Amino acid sequence: MLKIKIISVGKTKEEWLETAIAEYVKRLQAIALIECVWAKNDGHLLELVKKESLVVCCDAKGDLMTSEQFSGFLHKKLIEGGSRLAIVIGGAEGLPEELREGSGCALMSLSRMTLTHQMVRLLLVEQIYRAFEIAKGSKYHK
Amino acid sequence: MLKIKIISVGKTKEEWLETAIAEYVKRLQAIALIECVWAKNDGHLLELVKKESLVVCCDAKGDLMTSEQFSGFLHKKLIEGGSRLAIVIGGAEGLPEELREGSGCALMSLSRMTLTHQMVRLLLVEQIYRAFEIAKGSKYHK
Repeated sequence: MLKIKIISVGKTKEEWLETAIAEYVKRLQAIALIECVWAKNDGHLLELVKKESLVVCCDAKGDLMTSEQFSGFLHKKLIEGGSRLAIVIGGAEGLPEELREGSGCALMSLSRMTLTHQMVRLLLVEQIYRAFEIAKGSKYHK
Repeated sequence: MLKIKIISVGKTKEEWLETAIAEYVKRLQAIALIECVWAKNDGHLLELVKKESLVVCCDAKGDLMTSEQFSGFLHKKLIEGGSRLAIVIGGAEGLPEELREGSGCALMSLSRMTLTHQMVRLLLVEQIYRAFEIAKGSKYHK
């Protein structure tokens, strides 16, 4: 079983968001376990990141990918990480300095636009689901 | 009052999405009236588009913008359109040929990734809200 941990700063309260994310997590359950973890602040985030073997960070300045490229990237990272991967979403202030450009952490970007970090989590989960559907060649992605 | 009409193909059933979009539409009500309109199919979409004075289309191949650039773009388009603008989101098959590249219709892209058209509508409404907050210089966008 693949394990993908999504680490974000600041817990969300929006019920609609949890409903939407739960839907994709459920669809993914046969192939990957998606765990959402919340860091209280940047210090806590760095502590959580230290425990992970392989980490990718979402940052507006990261590499833009198409969904097909993200599918390849995700599969490659899951092999590198021995079926485990952590994906970090920064808080309202963005990623802490320690994880930004030049830190050696792979940076990816979902959009050049500034999104709320809640929206990033939703987009990310949908793109993870899509990444596996692309690899399967299903009708979800055409 | 500014009027922005979002025209999408295929009505959505997800309740969480309607809740999320309603939240941004409510926040925008003092400055702009957001109207969501559904086309039954591409033919119906083209009919609806004909009635509009100024139309922008969301397409994966369109211009990528930062939120700041989108804010400028949106304000410019609202002036051009005499305070009215229609934004089109294609269906599962993308935009009809008549509205794609070379059609003279301005194309914008939210992400290089393929998103569900429901997600595009949510992202778009959040970016419209953000665009006005950017113009106001509020704390929402920093």
